[in-house]
Amino acid sequence: MKVEDLILHCQSDWQAYTQHPFVEQLAAGTLPQAVYQHYLQQDFLFLKQYARAYALAIYKARTLAEMRHGLPSLQALLDSEIAHHVSYCEQWGLSEAAMEQTPEAPGTVAYTRYVLDSGCQGDATDLYVALAPCALGYAQIGRERFHSEIDLDSNPYGSWLALYGGDEFQTGVSSSRDHLETLLAEIDVDSVRGNQLKTIFATATRMEVAFWQQSIDACL
Amino acid sequence: MKVEDLILHCQSDWQAYTQHPFVEQLAAGTLPQAVYQHYLQQDFLFLKQYARAYALAIYKARTLAEMRHGLPSLQALLDSEIAHHVSYCEQWGLSEAAMEQTPEAPGTVAYTRYVLDSGCQGDATDLYVALAPCALGYAQIGRERFHSEIDLDSNPYGSWLALYGGDEFQTGVSSSRDHLETLLAEIDVDSVRGNQLKTIFATATRMEVAFWQQSIDACL
Amino acid sequence: MKVEDLILHCQSDWQAYTQHPFVEQLAAGTLPQAVYQHYLQQDFLFLKQYARAYALAIYKARTLAEMRHGLPSLQALLDSEIAHHVSYCEQWGLSEAAMEQTPEAPGTVAYTRYVLDSGCQGDATDLYVALAPCALGYAQIGRERFHSEIDLDSNPYGSWLALYGGDEFQTGVSSSRDHLETLLAEIDVDSVRGNQLKTIFATATRMEVAFWQQSIDACL
Amino acid sequence: MKVEDLILHCQSDWQAYTQHPFVEQLAAGTLPQAVYQHYLQQDFLFLKQYARAYALAIYKARTLAEMRHGLPSLQALLDSEIAHHVSYCEQWGLSEAAMEQTPEAPGTVAYTRYVLDSGCQGDATDLYVALAPCALGYAQIGRERFHSEIDLDSNPYGSWLALYGGDEFQTGVSSSRDHLETLLAEIDVDSVRGNQLKTIFATATRMEVAFWQQSIDACL
Repeated sequence: MKVEDLILHCQSDWQAYTQHPFVEQLAAGTLPQAVYQHYLQQDFLFLKQYARAYALAIYKARTLAEMRHGLPSLQALLDSEIAHHVSYCEQWGLSEAAMEQTPEAPGTVAYTRYVLDSGCQGDATDLYVALAPCALGYAQIGRERFHSEIDLDSNPYGSWLALYGGDEFQTGVSSSRDHLETLLAEIDVDSVRGNQLKTIFATATRMEVAFWQQSIDACL
Repeated sequence: MKVEDLILHCQSDWQAYTQHPFVEQLAAGTLPQAVYQHYLQQDFLFLKQYARAYALAIYKARTLAEMRHGLPSLQALLDSEIAHHVSYCEQWGLSEAAMEQTPEAPGTVAYTRYVLDSGCQGDATDLYVALAPCALGYAQIGRERFHSEIDLDSNPYGSWLALYGGDEFQTGVSSSRDHLETLLAEIDVDSVRGNQLKTIFATATRMEVAFWQQSIDACL
Repeated sequence: MKVEDLILHCQSDWQAYTQHPFVEQLAAGTLPQAVYQHYLQQDFLFLKQYARAYALAIYKARTLAEMRHGLPSLQALLDSEIAHHVSYCEQWGLSEAAMEQTPEAPGTVAYTRYVLDSGCQGDATDLYVALAPCALGYAQIGRERFHSEIDLDSNPYGSWLALYGGDEFQTGVSSSRDHLETLLAEIDVDSVRGNQLKTIFATATRMEVAFWQQSIDACL
Repeated sequence: MKVEDLILHCQSDWQAYTQHPFVEQLAAGTLPQAVYQHYLQQDFLFLKQYARAYALAIYKARTLAEMRHGLPSLQALLDSEIAHHVSYCEQWGLSEAAMEQTPEAPGTVAYTRYVLDSGCQGDATDLYVALAPCALGYAQIGRERFHSEIDLDSNPYGSWLALYGGDEFQTGVSSSRDHLETLLAEIDVDSVRGNQLKTIFATATRMEVAFWQQSIDACL
């Protein structure tokens, strides 16, 4: 099976995720700042658990090559990506220590612990499939929403769009996708194993939808 | 520290859980049936993951005595408790197979995977603390809501109240609480370790609140 | 792939295990009692970890059917099988508590923790493959060594041979083997996945050889 | 409790490990080369699992600070330490790929999987305690055996002694020990928890003894 099979299997959830009102409003620059701020704090907590998931992937790897594959993502999460959120949130007077103490909202718990549990219950392939909707979806959103017509000065979320639409992120996700294709290559799309992986990908995608939604709901 | 310290530490969350509108309406017999039905289906999916958590507790036990301690709960979950939900839902034409295929809602994922992750990240004590709000809270709700004034014939949820207010469940939870007291006995309530456990208990309690709420929200 | 493929892939290790001098001497009744006693104490410690592995299998199961599949084995281990070793060892004045305090020898640690790690690193199929050499090998040894010519009165290990050669154990292993065939059915014997499983089975088999050997070496 | 309590609790095992004939002969330069070669290949396989254990420690960490603490060790293992063994073994015509295919001997399996299982069964403290005998013991051996009287030119294992007796390794272990002291600080040495940790440290130390011994036994 191929990565595309995972997406096609949950097409309506995939669209609900990648074309969520949160995304539409963020691209249009009309997302209320309170919503964005709530999202960014929860996404900080998300990234902490996401880093745990990459550490889990290294622990579960069967070969040195696979172990080394996961290391740059883990380093990037613990060093630069979390730092990016922290520096962003510092403008609102939030320190990293304060952010780490913020209670995780249920949507944050749902998505992150689902990914971690998929990895603990299954093997490294289950884990990489559970991790995939985040990277693949953000890359698609970046590709679709970040383009020349967006005025980065007038859109307060321009830097978000530039980050995920930019070359560095796109190249990284492309490489992650290649890696996942390799893991899926010998699995038949309609086998028991294939169905397990499709369920994991679809569930993680639904948790992405709930994650966008919770920041909107929190500010109603 | 004592079990009571865990509850006192998150008193407002604990009240939001044990006195949730879902509970009030269920005790009054006014809860819409659609809400109850949504809850029961998700609770079935919850119990499946909860049984995984008890299996995890046996796996993580350090002594034969501790391993044997977890076994009756695991058996009860896989045999009688899940069967209870299935037989209940069958009156609405739902088979166990159909219920197992129902997608887990985000609140169900959040609570169950948080419990499982607490056990995987920490040790058996972390896991039992994460499992505790469910048993302790249902026992408290049963004690408080199931009494002679309730007319079990006129309240459509009378059997739920009778189940959790009844002697068998109350005795079982009392025994689980004693076990947890033993695990907590040598931990100082204000130590780093004590604070870790208070955070786990408080977070699991917040996930209980979200679990009640999601069935109400699903039927708005 | 089939269970037979796992055995054929490590034929020489399989023979070293099922035809080990320990087995030959046990069947002939010539095994020194000190060796048997060392083995039985370590096998008690082995069974404790083996029970943890079955609990892990239930935790890792993806369906209720799979969860229920593992439960009887877990119950049997914690109730009857460990009790059998305890009652056997009591004739030498060893209580269960004393046996549980006995330090695990390296060969015991190697085999049990390899099985547990196979399950944690991989999925439930990896775990069941790691568990298989024990059941399949003991059943083969029982079939080959327990027959009418053995004088159960004169062979001090007759009860061991009768246990593993008897109908109850043979039927149980036959059922476990059927279950494993189902898990392996859609995996190609020469795929990456197939090779992972062959490596796990072969390694667990080598650990069985080391487990027999350590009781002989301990009494030299 | 303190790190010293862990060592004192298993004093005779600790001496059997740090003053093992393998160590004596290595320091004297009289260790047969075949024994050393066997050790180095198995130690390569050991380091691979050891790196998995550090990844597990990051996964199990509860704070960003703890997650970041484990990262340098993981990087060092996957980058420099494994590379050191590979470059050493290349002089005997062994590639990294060939070394990774070498079957793990039972003593290697016992030690590595015990460490990993200690981490999976318990929490991050259990894991760091299981990891400690390796670092602390090698540092002590390096301190005791590497000194001016050793002629690094005539002792074929001089570079091993220089590595573990050198400032970089000594400083790293000193820092790891400080970290472990922090984890142990609020645990009473005679509590149930303290006894769990003493058992883990003692067992891991016994597995170190078996690891030295297996390379000697393999070349008898």
